Amino acid sequence: MTATKKESEIKNTENSTPSTLSDAPIGVFDSGVGGLTVVREIMRNLPNEKIVYFGDTARVPYGSKSQENVIRFSKQIIHFLRTQGVKAIVIACNTASALALDAVESDLDIPIIGVIKPGAHMAAKATHNKRVGVIGTESTIRSRTYDRFIQQQDPEIVVFGKACPLFVPLVEEGWLKDSVTEEVARRYLSELLRKDIDTLVLGCTHYPLIRSLVGKIAGDQVTLVNPAYETAQELRRLLEQEQLINTGENNKKDEMHQFYVSDAAEKFGEFANSILPYDVKRARKINIEEY
Amino acid sequence: MTATKKESEIKNTENSTPSTLSDAPIGVFDSGVGGLTVVREIMRNLPNEKIVYFGDTARVPYGSKSQENVIRFSKQIIHFLRTQGVKAIVIACNTASALALDAVESDLDIPIIGVIKPGAHMAAKATHNKRVGVIGTESTIRSRTYDRFIQQQDPEIVVFGKACPLFVPLVEEGWLKDSVTEEVARRYLSELLRKDIDTLVLGCTHYPLIRSLVGKIAGDQVTLVNPAYETAQELRRLLEQEQLINTGENNKKDEMHQFYVSDAAEKFGEFANSILPYDVKRARKINIEEY
Repeated sequence: MTATKKESEIKNTENSTPSTLSDAPIGVFDSGVGGLTVVREIMRNLPNEKIVYFGDTARVPYGSKSQENVIRFSKQIIHFLRTQGVKAIVIACNTASALALDAVESDLDIPIIGVIKPGAHMAAKATHNKRVGVIGTESTIRSRTYDRFIQQQDPEIVVFGKACPLFVPLVEEGWLKDSVTEEVARRYLSELLRKDIDTLVLGCTHYPLIRSLVGKIAGDQVTLVNPAYETAQELRRLLEQEQLINTGENNKKDEMHQFYVSDAAEKFGEFANSILPYDVKRARKINIEEY
Repeated sequence: MTATKKESEIKNTENSTPSTLSDAPIGVFDSGVGGLTVVREIMRNLPNEKIVYFGDTARVPYGSKSQENVIRFSKQIIHFLRTQGVKAIVIACNTASALALDAVESDLDIPIIGVIKPGAHMAAKATHNKRVGVIGTESTIRSRTYDRFIQQQDPEIVVFGKACPLFVPLVEEGWLKDSVTEEVARRYLSELLRKDIDTLVLGCTHYPLIRSLVGKIAGDQVTLVNPAYETAQELRRLLEQEQLINTGENNKKDEMHQFYVSDAAEKFGEFANSILPYDVKRARKINIEEY
């Protein structure tokens, strides 16, 4: 083991960064399966990056939890991901990005990003009439974190938030193109659309999976912002800046990505395989309370 | 404090049981707010009984958790309720009744009941054509606990289960008499109704809140069984048998019932006040992981 490590270190002195670091995986976590839409964008946009994913399926959903608990959960998960030797961390959960990112980033010596800032930046860029809608879980909307980051870019932008608590269970039921989901979306969005928004942020990681349905109701005049995609772009910039991009030359095809959950690993694996461009052979269950 | 206790003990030697025991509260717990429908039935049917309720709002929902975790959570909660001096415990949660009751009752020296056995017994009594439907969360249905208890009463009864994962979020959204909820219910129930059932068990504590809507779709020929009501009746029988009925003479009107949660106490209080015939002044938040 030590010998192999040494060999690869020697081999990689030609590169600007030691292989042990740029070859390391990206840690991605979420309260459950939703963060897999972020994993999907990372796989599509940074195909050489290895991923260690943790889905906190034993404590899902974070949307109804207090800030104190969400911070505690996030610290445990970051501790676990560090044991997996990750070079950077993506909080692929809007609630944890809103409630915990500030509290955890100061303690870390590796880069960490959430999904909210990249989404907020794109929304501020996309809007012409300076009226932006944000949909998400109750706690994301209540925290007004999107509002804050959007208005940091341009204080003149007016942000309208709307919590849509039924979208997550509808997506998890698999009713993605469905008359019930459409009626629910129509009700949730009508209030926002009356505000004459021209940009709508899909502020929950499950929502990209009903993107086309939401787009149909919002209409062509509304630009949809997908923070999962923007986060993958932000991650690329960050890795380039820190010279941490994986060139892929030391990657092994087999089990390039690792998936961990705190409960119900089998069900997770099925959902993961239904949305990822990657064959998830198994998800491993760990006791996250031990971290 | 000690003096007061002594006084009441002396005063109650006339009664068949010491006041300290029959005056003690009933412990009731659930994964969140759903168990309040059981509390409502206890308040209606046993108005002299004091209640200490614990809602595990930090770890809700149990429906998607593994048996191992549900047992661990239940043991922690029972430990907490014992610190409150309860004389009996009601597991007002179908998932915990299905997955944890067997594992926890052997360690206890006070009576404990779940919601499933009383509901199952009534279903077996109510059916004429021996075809019973059960609706509930995924894990309750998967566990087939209702099936087992119903067939213990009469092995000839055929039980048809159907998981309805959207009902809980629809109830929590407050869409109780609503066209979306009706359409969702129509889809969920159509399969069961084709099986020619004459009895339907509302196998999740949230479901009594959409009882009239479910009854409308199921039709007059289907008897609805509400395990919350049956559990209150079973609790009465148990307290009578153990001579633990509270006569109410030592009750103080003020704060007769206590409500505890593991998260988001304020939101819990609002929901509780919307369904209980009692003014919940406050719910207290505790750290259940410490128990």
